[in-house]
Amino acid sequence: RRGEMAKSTQLIDNEVFRAYATYTAIVLLKMMLMSLITAYFRITRKAFVNPEDTASFGKGENAKKYLRTDPDVERVRRGHLNDLENIVPFVGIGLLYALSSPELSTALLHFRIFTGARILHTFAYLIPLPQPGRGLSWAVGYAVTFSMAYKVLKTAWLL
Amino acid sequence: RRGEMAKSTQLIDNEVFRAYATYTAIVLLKMMLMSLITAYFRITRKAFVNPEDTASFGKGENAKKYLRTDPDVERVRRGHLNDLENIVPFVGIGLLYALSSPELSTALLHFRIFTGARILHTFAYLIPLPQPGRGLSWAVGYAVTFSMAYKVLKTAWLL
Amino acid sequence: RRGEMAKSTQLIDNEVFRAYATYTAIVLLKMMLMSLITAYFRITRKAFVNPEDTASFGKGENAKKYLRTDPDVERVRRGHLNDLENIVPFVGIGLLYALSSPELSTALLHFRIFTGARILHTFAYLIPLPQPGRGLSWAVGYAVTFSMAYKVLKTAWLL
Repeated sequence: RRGEMAKSTQLIDNEVFRAYATYTAIVLLKMMLMSLITAYFRITRKAFVNPEDTASFGKGENAKKYLRTDPDVERVRRGHLNDLENIVPFVGIGLLYALSSPELSTALLHFRIFTGARILHTFAYLIPLPQPGRGLSWAVGYAVTFSMAYKVLKTAWLL
Repeated sequence: RRGEMAKSTQLIDNEVFRAYATYTAIVLLKMMLMSLITAYFRITRKAFVNPEDTASFGKGENAKKYLRTDPDVERVRRGHLNDLENIVPFVGIGLLYALSSPELSTALLHFRIFTGARILHTFAYLIPLPQPGRGLSWAVGYAVTFSMAYKVLKTAWLL
Repeated sequence: RRGEMAKSTQLIDNEVFRAYATYTAIVLLKMMLMSLITAYFRITRKAFVNPEDTASFGKGENAKKYLRTDPDVERVRRGHLNDLENIVPFVGIGLLYALSSPELSTALLHFRIFTGARILHTFAYLIPLPQPGRGLSWAVGYAVTFSMAYKVLKTAWLL
């Protein structure tokens, strides 16, 4: 058993993999934060979607008026969905990239730019910043993931 | 080739990784089940979104009346999206956590509580149970993922 | 350091894992393509959701009229969400499957059918093809993921 344990820890001892683990955890925690921001806006704007969520505001028509959409809530939800659409490919392709023996400095560059771009994207979406702020931060993260996918396909290609 | 094969199986021989694989498969299968439940409600409630899906009900206005939203369908879809928002971080962070050499008992505790919480969350959403049933089950899964992320960052930290 | 590096590359030297890496990269790139198609339809149909995205069309009412939903945009977005719901389980379960020592030919069969089914699904959704074209391509991808999950649970089972 001991030997197996030791073997399974080797991956996390690899520096590129450690960098991947660090940035993936950060970027997934950032995505999870969107749930809390949505909850915050739902509660402060009193804008809910499930009838059972408004029960504490009373019964009947009194509670029903809080079943509505709010522009701030919808904005956070769009940011959250955009995170899912972009962070899922980063996590999946990034793992394969980290296992394709890139240079540590190159890997760090990819992970750092992606993470920075997605944090900027969230601010650009929530403040909101004028375009092309959000568009550019989205495109930078997209390009980084694309670059990692290129390295993965070049290294692993077996169709 | 044989040597490589043997090496690649070592990960799945590791007990923490086997536990991760088991619970990740279960929780992803549970998420996939939401597609079938959505299809079931779409068909029984006759509530579709794509015109080509209603073609079997006839042509013109007769088919068009089934292009509508239904509260039960929308409820399942919200549950599915909530799964994506929460199970994606679990799968990503959980993999890194499983590779960060946690104690088997601690790892099992994390995986079991998360899986139980998400199954409860689905029941709370679909029945629906009165709040804070759904809210609490969501928060428990969220806290478990957060705890795993903390261990990952403590072990792997390389910024 | 050299020894560790060498070890981390062994996974990508394994043929099943290389096949997994190749098809996962392809299928995630295909999913990322949906963002570009959404952007294309938003711009050509002039249908936006964020006020800051219409600022270049002028101010006030002139820009406001482009804050609207468009059936083509919504169709691509549904295809994108369907990708997320189905490709996330493939990437997660597929990784565990690739580590569960399947035969290379069996693994390739799974990965190829899934990838083909999801590409067909996208065409069926966007053209759109009459049903059951989209339904069948969805079901095939679903069944492949289910089959991989069965192998993972049979190999790894530790509850």
